[in-house]
Amino acid sequence: MSTADAYPKLIALTRELKLLQDAAALLSWDQETQMPRDGVAWRAEQMAWFGGEVHRRFTAPEVGDWIAASEAAGAEPGSDEAANVREWRHAYDRATRVPAELVEAFERTRAIAKSAWAAAREASDFAAFAPHLEKLIDLSRRKAEYWGHGGRTYDALLDEFERGASSARLTALFADLRPELVAIAAEALEREPFDAGRLAGDYPVERQQAFNREVAEAVGFDFAAGRIDAAVHPFCTGLGPRDTRLTTRYDVADFRSSLFGVLHEAGHGLYDQGLRGECHGQPVGEAVSLGVHESQSRLWENHVGRSRAFWETWLPRAAVHFPHLARLTPEDLYRSVNQAERSHIRVEADEVTYDLHIMLRYEMETAIFDGGLAVADIPGEWNRRFEDLLGLKVRHDAEGCLQDIHWSLGIFGYFPTYSLGNLNASHLMAAARRQRPDLDGQMAAGDYSGLLDWMREKIHRPGSRLLPEALIAQAAGSAATPEAHLAHLRSRYLGD
Amino acid sequence: MSTADAYPKLIALTRELKLLQDAAALLSWDQETQMPRDGVAWRAEQMAWFGGEVHRRFTAPEVGDWIAASEAAGAEPGSDEAANVREWRHAYDRATRVPAELVEAFERTRAIAKSAWAAAREASDFAAFAPHLEKLIDLSRRKAEYWGHGGRTYDALLDEFERGASSARLTALFADLRPELVAIAAEALEREPFDAGRLAGDYPVERQQAFNREVAEAVGFDFAAGRIDAAVHPFCTGLGPRDTRLTTRYDVADFRSSLFGVLHEAGHGLYDQGLRGECHGQPVGEAVSLGVHESQSRLWENHVGRSRAFWETWLPRAAVHFPHLARLTPEDLYRSVNQAERSHIRVEADEVTYDLHIMLRYEMETAIFDGGLAVADIPGEWNRRFEDLLGLKVRHDAEGCLQDIHWSLGIFGYFPTYSLGNLNASHLMAAARRQRPDLDGQMAAGDYSGLLDWMREKIHRPGSRLLPEALIAQAAGSAATPEAHLAHLRSRYLGD
Repeated sequence: MSTADAYPKLIALTRELKLLQDAAALLSWDQETQMPRDGVAWRAEQMAWFGGEVHRRFTAPEVGDWIAASEAAGAEPGSDEAANVREWRHAYDRATRVPAELVEAFERTRAIAKSAWAAAREASDFAAFAPHLEKLIDLSRRKAEYWGHGGRTYDALLDEFERGASSARLTALFADLRPELVAIAAEALEREPFDAGRLAGDYPVERQQAFNREVAEAVGFDFAAGRIDAAVHPFCTGLGPRDTRLTTRYDVADFRSSLFGVLHEAGHGLYDQGLRGECHGQPVGEAVSLGVHESQSRLWENHVGRSRAFWETWLPRAAVHFPHLARLTPEDLYRSVNQAERSHIRVEADEVTYDLHIMLRYEMETAIFDGGLAVADIPGEWNRRFEDLLGLKVRHDAEGCLQDIHWSLGIFGYFPTYSLGNLNASHLMAAARRQRPDLDGQMAAGDYSGLLDWMREKIHRPGSRLLPEALIAQAAGSAATPEAHLAHLRSRYLGD
Repeated sequence: MSTADAYPKLIALTRELKLLQDAAALLSWDQETQMPRDGVAWRAEQMAWFGGEVHRRFTAPEVGDWIAASEAAGAEPGSDEAANVREWRHAYDRATRVPAELVEAFERTRAIAKSAWAAAREASDFAAFAPHLEKLIDLSRRKAEYWGHGGRTYDALLDEFERGASSARLTALFADLRPELVAIAAEALEREPFDAGRLAGDYPVERQQAFNREVAEAVGFDFAAGRIDAAVHPFCTGLGPRDTRLTTRYDVADFRSSLFGVLHEAGHGLYDQGLRGECHGQPVGEAVSLGVHESQSRLWENHVGRSRAFWETWLPRAAVHFPHLARLTPEDLYRSVNQAERSHIRVEADEVTYDLHIMLRYEMETAIFDGGLAVADIPGEWNRRFEDLLGLKVRHDAEGCLQDIHWSLGIFGYFPTYSLGNLNASHLMAAARRQRPDLDGQMAAGDYSGLLDWMREKIHRPGSRLLPEALIAQAAGSAATPEAHLAHLRSRYLGD
């Protein structure tokens, strides 16, 4: 085979596999938002088929030959081609270690577990979910052992979501971060709380939808290439280069829940919509990691959506949809969305305590995979550690270890990327402000295009050309540290 | 290869292909109900991939060997196995005549055309749709020529939807039916019309949804294995053995439009939900033809939903959702939904004029495929023939040749099955009444289980074990003729 043929063959193959993967993503989105209850068994068979088919096609020996030939041909360093070949090599070496049957079993199991989790969470019945979780942990452990690691099973899982991450580094990072966060939280919790009763009123779902849509459009989410639906657990998924779907959930007594769900997921969606569509299916057309993805969601949710400037612009619009809000000031709203609070639900936690929720999950996952924690002991262990970290008792598992969808999807090693995302968001925001001094003025006028442009250029369009840490460092001028994030929290929660 | 292996291999292959086909059906359902506008290009590529993949796998030479070996092994006549092998042979011989590239081009083109049609219909702009229609006619003609026929291209297209149908027989049938229908319509149109103004009032979409759901549940539609959404054109699609999706459209000034959409599509849905799920993907687990499918939709829509007994049961429930209806009597509703009327829109036509709408489409399609009618001449020809048949001018193409989705899906030869469905529905209903004398008493008490049981046993569970005409004859005790349908129309439209 001529080496000149190899690269175009890989481009064609990965485009074809992306057609399948995006169909599987639709099957999954549909299961979470539309599918009738009894559709789950057949849907699980479909997910298994897609998982197996993509795996078998990608791990075929000739694909290995094409990758080797492309490596031998040598692409220009820093080019799209070089990045694609680097990522294909990494993915190929991992994938070929895992048998297709295991991939199929994993996909089948998690499709069933996802529906079982939704029902178990609704009923706060951990026992109903436990057998599914048991299977997923077992399958994930087997995958991790096939992938291989330097002694810690969990490290092999982490790599799937964040190239370059390791439990040694995360443990050290969290050890540094924890006392700082606990100290900020302690001080913030002493402040007089905002009286949430002042927001009381009706928030009909349709009006929340209308308001959320206005906000999402204003930050740049393109509804010709996306939509928002309701789901048990907010998420964002890409179904094609021009089809990005967000979900949120509605509380008719409080519009903030769905709004921040939308702002968060729209942050993910803006990243997806900002990728180079003409490279869809190639690594350079894909998001680089979850820790970078989460930097985008947290940026729009927190740095934009929870800012004073945001509420100066948006309270008047909110009051059009919810007239009783007219009696409040932007400062009231600002305070209401930056309230440190001991709370049970991660996705609704304030920015100070949020990473404590992540540390809990990180500790639980390492205990499961490297510490031998049994599934039956998860609720007790969760509740004990939760009280230790956040000073609150867990009253039932729906507000404890059943609250997140991730484990039901067989996703272990994902949670730490949320904290990396928080650090990255603050680090990038500080850099964008330095590089574009007019940014805050624009945003005060309700114009978010400057910030989005910066992200488009620095983060979205590069896709996976660089590895995550290198991308952040290139964008911001220095590697991410907790510094900017802690400064942001102190200013927001301990400032005036 | 041992012949004993061949049949299980076919079972396994067709099950696997059904996993893919159902995923493609979801991609299609999603495009019509959910997908953002700009998703269409990638979606079209996906549809092309699925079409090509299924085609290539099914037409592989070894599949032909397996079918031949199964035929040689000889299954017991009347068994599932015999029917499966018969249908696989028919499908294989047709499919192997068509190149995969043509299947891919067809799927790609129709996915794009479907979205173009929706926009063109909205704008009543035939010229915007014409190039897509041109391509689909050309691709369909090429498929038909590959399939082969006895001199009429259109016959090859018909066979795809109704095994055993031919334009010679349909032309003769319609020639018999037309004067009868015209005579009934003429007399019915002379009757004093029901004053539609008496139904005037608000019909909020959510209340229509609630009422429609009650009705659909009452006739036996299982929402654990199905759902109802809104779409430009009402349809029903099966996405798995326990996942049947209906769509309807809402008119906030008239609840009857969405209700009869739901009853019609629920009739299709009941058929799908009544198929043997354990045979999903095998011919014996599939609906036998569109003419039989349509017998089920028309039966529940018209024979059940437009009966006096139905409104005696359901007017009080309707009045709970739409209080202003309390001033009407069941007889008023009965008259309001059995109103002969010259109208433009097929799916909203009364039962007497409905088949005249079908004859128009049949004439148009035969003129296109065997009479050389050019695409540019379609609107003029449609309008001329429409006025001739129904005595009404067409004011714009949205109420003329753009009203139906079918052509945008490259579906030609489908419309005549609607008339076959009407005849079959009346024929089956008469047989069910003869065989179960208590049926009307049950239905008067709002109990539809007897009718559904009969259909389950006679029509749904057999799947494709028999060919369509034989199935109807076996169920009803005699072959379908127009007689029962004409008697039904005379009684309903000319009786007291």
